[in-house]
Amino acid sequence: MNKIIKTILVMTAITFISSCSKPTETPATSAADKANPQQTYHWKLVTSWPKNFPGLGVAPERLASWVKEMSGGRLQIKVYGAGELVPALEVFDAVSRGTAEMGHSGAYYWKGKAPGAQFFSSVPFGLNAQEMNAWLHYGGGLQLWQEVYEPFGIIPLAGGNSGVQMAGWFNKEINSVEDIKGLKMRIPGLGGEVMTRLGALTENLPGGEIFTALQTGRIDATEWVGPYNDLAFGLNKAAKFYYYPGWHEPGTTMELTVNKKAFEALPKDLQAILTVAARAVNQDMLDEYTAKNNAALKQLIENGDVKLRPLPADVLEKLQEVSDQVVLELSEVNPNAKKIYQSFNEFRSNVIDYHKISEQSYINARRTPE
Amino acid sequence: MNKIIKTILVMTAITFISSCSKPTETPATSAADKANPQQTYHWKLVTSWPKNFPGLGVAPERLASWVKEMSGGRLQIKVYGAGELVPALEVFDAVSRGTAEMGHSGAYYWKGKAPGAQFFSSVPFGLNAQEMNAWLHYGGGLQLWQEVYEPFGIIPLAGGNSGVQMAGWFNKEINSVEDIKGLKMRIPGLGGEVMTRLGALTENLPGGEIFTALQTGRIDATEWVGPYNDLAFGLNKAAKFYYYPGWHEPGTTMELTVNKKAFEALPKDLQAILTVAARAVNQDMLDEYTAKNNAALKQLIENGDVKLRPLPADVLEKLQEVSDQVVLELSEVNPNAKKIYQSFNEFRSNVIDYHKISEQSYINARRTPE
Repeated sequence: MNKIIKTILVMTAITFISSCSKPTETPATSAADKANPQQTYHWKLVTSWPKNFPGLGVAPERLASWVKEMSGGRLQIKVYGAGELVPALEVFDAVSRGTAEMGHSGAYYWKGKAPGAQFFSSVPFGLNAQEMNAWLHYGGGLQLWQEVYEPFGIIPLAGGNSGVQMAGWFNKEINSVEDIKGLKMRIPGLGGEVMTRLGALTENLPGGEIFTALQTGRIDATEWVGPYNDLAFGLNKAAKFYYYPGWHEPGTTMELTVNKKAFEALPKDLQAILTVAARAVNQDMLDEYTAKNNAALKQLIENGDVKLRPLPADVLEKLQEVSDQVVLELSEVNPNAKKIYQSFNEFRSNVIDYHKISEQSYINARRTPE
Repeated sequence: MNKIIKTILVMTAITFISSCSKPTETPATSAADKANPQQTYHWKLVTSWPKNFPGLGVAPERLASWVKEMSGGRLQIKVYGAGELVPALEVFDAVSRGTAEMGHSGAYYWKGKAPGAQFFSSVPFGLNAQEMNAWLHYGGGLQLWQEVYEPFGIIPLAGGNSGVQMAGWFNKEINSVEDIKGLKMRIPGLGGEVMTRLGALTENLPGGEIFTALQTGRIDATEWVGPYNDLAFGLNKAAKFYYYPGWHEPGTTMELTVNKKAFEALPKDLQAILTVAARAVNQDMLDEYTAKNNAALKQLIENGDVKLRPLPADVLEKLQEVSDQVVLELSEVNPNAKKIYQSFNEFRSNVIDYHKISEQSYINARRTPE
């Protein structure tokens, strides 16, 4: 039974668990215990995505729908698209302040507030979706994440994964590392830093602004997610080349953030419902992407004048060399980032070793259908 | 919103959903509507695994624990190990009869009752965990599975995934296809059929009987799961060679089965709690295996006199050729199996195409840490 309890400890928000194991010592408990079990809670959830955007925007709606069913209507969550209540990149602040009880976004957007947070979204040449989920839930990752957000009064939970993304849409061909120099590209997080070091002029733009920037030539290239999402923005109408693989985002975790005080004020059953629903939504998004990306890819190529291209091997090699350097430097920014890096890196080494003889060995042994 | 509703439709037990959309037409609804919302339900869950066995046996305990928390104690599920209430391979019958309200097992064990069921556990050279979850939840797989179990009064849900397994433990070296002839091996399902065609003498044994059979030489080889589970049985003390990759079980789905009448008698919030908790447990098991397999592998090799070996390329090639034939023949057994095969196979082709430029392309581009 110890293993089970340990797992729940890791998986569930720290304060929720503290309240279970030490019923009289934490504010969480007092609040949860005083909560009226029949009260109906009306929550707001703000996102960084257009309302109902495929995959990304649908996940929080699904969470809201499941939570409503499971709670018999006692916890009702209203989802807001980017800009409806707060702008796309102010989700974190809104949840921290309590303007909204919840948010759905990506941790790498908050690198200015907490540099270490980037490890919890995606790391160039880092973990894929399966590995990321394992690190978060059984490798200590989620606990470290919760520590990083603690000073902001926010509890983070994994809330979806894109799988391996695409390297992006380019209007200039990438035949060598030289071609990256001077490239104006929309690419956030650590991937953006790597491209900057190789001479690109990078910036972050909210999803909703990408198409116009690319079409008007304000940027030469952009990464977004993968075929299913990229089709929704019609990016094939604005660029000539579609490059793979997504070295910079090999298994990006979306985050569900919860205002800590609001969470602690919920009765314990609603806390558990929210936490387990987040876990289910986390898998659900990956299931949807995995099922829909191939058909979307075909449509993108057939309906646009698009060329699908692999990044050249020497470009990938250089990107990896610079990525390793960028990630190492990130670990030196502060003790928090160092601690996260050490956990992440050790997990990465071990899981790569094992996947060489399991996932990777299998996928390479499997023949392609004729 | 249509997409959301469609997804929930696929994911949730058919009868549960029918009751949502047509509140007065189905027996499910009437039962659920008459259910007393304050009643406490005491359920039994029987499994094919030793009590609290790592991964496999822990998953149903976790489900029980989460459901209890989420329901505020209104749905309490007691988990039984193999043989405690019914033998390991009688789980399906027990749930069908209602001896237990739930079961946790693998669909390939019931090939005698429903040959098509094997597609829902694992198919040689078939889908890995990520692909399997996508097919089940967004490719129509779960719906087909529910149709197959309908005549038995059982609702199936995905309840865990092992990831790519190991090819198994051997006391005879496999250097060529010839070495399979006469090999006495414990290997269930379609993988067993493939090995039989290549001259092996195969059988299925419940997990708890494997070690002794291997140690006494009653069998020459066995597959079980992967390092984390194989360590728990101490299989390294009974065999010399540990082969990879698990071509026969590249992403085995465990099943949570629910007696349909018992499910329909639950109030709707408890139906939703059970369904979403299953989804979370499904991901949780893979997370645990992914995090723990590498350390277990090191321990297996260090503590035993074990040699880790890849199956030779020509053996894998032959295994795939025979697997394709076996799976095709399975599809011809009955119209149900044909329908499932068509769905599975189409999904497989498409997802392999996409993963060539995403998951596979990435994992091969990523360098191994030094």
